[in-house]
Amino acid sequence: MNKLRELALKLGKNSRNASSQLHSIKTVQKNDVLRRISDCIEKNKINIFQGNLLDLKVAKKANKDSAFLDRLEITNKSIHDMCNGLEQVASLPDPIGTISNLMEQPSGIKVGNMNVPIGVILMIYESRPNVTVDAAALTLKTGNSIILRGGSESINSNVALHTIFYDTLKKYNVPVNSVQLAKETNRDLVKELLLLDKYIDIVIPRGGKSLIERISKDSKIQVIKHLDGICHVYIDEFADKKRAVDITMNSKTQRLGTCNTLETLLVNRKIAEKTLPLICKLLLEKNVEIRVCKLTKQILSEKKFPALRKIKTATNKDWATEYLDAILSIKTVACMDEAISHISTYGSSHTESIVTENHENAMNFLRRVDSSSVMVNTSTRFADGFQYGLGAEIGISTNKLHARGPVGLEGLTTKKWIVMSDGQVRY
Amino acid sequence: MNKLRELALKLGKNSRNASSQLHSIKTVQKNDVLRRISDCIEKNKINIFQGNLLDLKVAKKANKDSAFLDRLEITNKSIHDMCNGLEQVASLPDPIGTISNLMEQPSGIKVGNMNVPIGVILMIYESRPNVTVDAAALTLKTGNSIILRGGSESINSNVALHTIFYDTLKKYNVPVNSVQLAKETNRDLVKELLLLDKYIDIVIPRGGKSLIERISKDSKIQVIKHLDGICHVYIDEFADKKRAVDITMNSKTQRLGTCNTLETLLVNRKIAEKTLPLICKLLLEKNVEIRVCKLTKQILSEKKFPALRKIKTATNKDWATEYLDAILSIKTVACMDEAISHISTYGSSHTESIVTENHENAMNFLRRVDSSSVMVNTSTRFADGFQYGLGAEIGISTNKLHARGPVGLEGLTTKKWIVMSDGQVRY
Repeated sequence: MNKLRELALKLGKNSRNASSQLHSIKTVQKNDVLRRISDCIEKNKINIFQGNLLDLKVAKKANKDSAFLDRLEITNKSIHDMCNGLEQVASLPDPIGTISNLMEQPSGIKVGNMNVPIGVILMIYESRPNVTVDAAALTLKTGNSIILRGGSESINSNVALHTIFYDTLKKYNVPVNSVQLAKETNRDLVKELLLLDKYIDIVIPRGGKSLIERISKDSKIQVIKHLDGICHVYIDEFADKKRAVDITMNSKTQRLGTCNTLETLLVNRKIAEKTLPLICKLLLEKNVEIRVCKLTKQILSEKKFPALRKIKTATNKDWATEYLDAILSIKTVACMDEAISHISTYGSSHTESIVTENHENAMNFLRRVDSSSVMVNTSTRFADGFQYGLGAEIGISTNKLHARGPVGLEGLTTKKWIVMSDGQVRY
Repeated sequence: MNKLRELALKLGKNSRNASSQLHSIKTVQKNDVLRRISDCIEKNKINIFQGNLLDLKVAKKANKDSAFLDRLEITNKSIHDMCNGLEQVASLPDPIGTISNLMEQPSGIKVGNMNVPIGVILMIYESRPNVTVDAAALTLKTGNSIILRGGSESINSNVALHTIFYDTLKKYNVPVNSVQLAKETNRDLVKELLLLDKYIDIVIPRGGKSLIERISKDSKIQVIKHLDGICHVYIDEFADKKRAVDITMNSKTQRLGTCNTLETLLVNRKIAEKTLPLICKLLLEKNVEIRVCKLTKQILSEKKFPALRKIKTATNKDWATEYLDAILSIKTVACMDEAISHISTYGSSHTESIVTENHENAMNFLRRVDSSSVMVNTSTRFADGFQYGLGAEIGISTNKLHARGPVGLEGLTTKKWIVMSDGQVRY
């Protein structure tokens, strides 16, 4: 057996063993450990900064761009945010062991569901070292064990952070292998880990699209992921004009580079003349490039839109693109059916919002659009675990099954059936 | 493109289209169609019998055994059961569109979950033609479209049954492609279908272990399945003796060939002398072969068990075997930890039951055993969708995520996030 395979197997087996011991760790103990880790991070921040400096040095030598260095750098503020996150996870209710829907059946047996940990989670991520702390905190709280596999570019930062977890878990008699860090940075180790469906229950990748595609392709284990966030706002014929403008502008420009940012605006033909000129004016003022369908261009031209020459024509490729940038594509549609059909053809099942005052259209949109989040009169920027009241977020999923949309504590649990009776047998 | 690939693609695309139209079919319409199909099956049973006779003729010519012919044959009783099943599914509440956990968040947005269809389901099954009707009814009720792929041995029966669905769907203006039957019996068609993750959302196989293993290996689509049902009863040191005997006997002998039948009995050392002799006596009376660990044999010998020579010694292979037959393996364990560790090593995550009067042990067993159903003082034979009050069952899943255990209507749905507000934007 080659060395990497051996290492992967060791990580997998260690995690599985830790996972079966985590069942007996009490809520108060988990919360104490999380709070203690927060203290230790604050106290040992010098060590963390030292590790991080090593990573930053390597990155600068490799001429990485400023966005890269930004993601990699640990500042006093990031230390503060990590500690806050740990305190917050500690104060959330423990979902493990909760029993729901317990009901007596005609045979006399009582049947219900119990929330339990999923088991072993493999987290694969790039640059941001805070993921090390956030992910470990969420999995510890939910009684899962985790294998952390950060990028080689942040290895020294991750080692410094993981050391604090290791020491504290040991001190509090929680299995140290509940939180393991893969320190070997050879890429082939990931390939070996992705084959261990016997020891690892789910994989959560965080990073660029190519990373996530590669993992999905190589993995024998179920992957919780989203590839794209091609989010849509549909302005219905019965939209309130001010709401249409506000929601469009907020969805597109409040932050440009997030997965819940608006990428394509769909406008009903019957309200296009009343809304498009103002929206386009405001977008151009915010330096957002606009790419439109022929009909939209025609409408703007008929309305004598002053900056028409600044507006480009969209191609089919635009409808399928997540710009993550100051660009918006706009399409005028004949009816809601056309909007929904456009979303189902080009969308990424992430988040779509309708702007309408009409109850029937709102309910139809909610029912028919097959995305992880579907909204009425709301900015797509709200698609976020904290905004949804989950208290935490380990990622966003556009999978259809299990966790869909923002994944918080509950997405790291599963439900099993429990049955109790006084000796019932079946006839 | 080869012919089978073309056919698979056509089935997939048809189903996806039908699925997007099913969103607008109302509950009452779905129920009417289900009841109407029940009427038509009863009225057209001559056609069904004729198709079935063709299949039986082929099977007899091929010298299939009586169990095979039994599963294949459609009788007046099976017609009656299918019709009953349809009426029952029609009378169950429609899970689609239900909204749960709708709560207002501090930002003013209202966030909740809506139950929606999964989309397109591929059902692959062997011999029993009633699966055609049961599966189509459950998917229709939950707004999913289905591709039915029965075995070649029942193709004429399946065509006769499917014709009734086709005609009724057409008459009631429900997309006929909601229920498609793959009439091509070439096995390679299944391989092509299993690659269409763009058009098919889940695969549910029903049949022998080798079929299910093959499908899991070939599928790019998520498979809802269970491979084995190696179920355990653990008799705790604080067990009531009568309950221990009754639950063991019922779990093992009420039906021998089902997936929720007991295969390995675990007995706490401290209660072994008091329970094993009676249990073994009753098992032998019912002609159940017994295979035991060394310690169990020693205990029986010390208690001067009269038929000791009839009792065999178990090997490690026994612990990992689903007999589906009149055989039971028995192991005496030192404590509950050993029982749970045995279950996690050799079990199949299907169903395990503890017999105990001790509250703490009962709760620990419920929490710690990582199976789809975990029971206290209850026969494993209750692990069944109807017994759990689901009103229907499309299969049993030992997957950890999404549907776990018996899968009813809710297992054919998924939850998306819905968000409503009065024009909320994010700051």
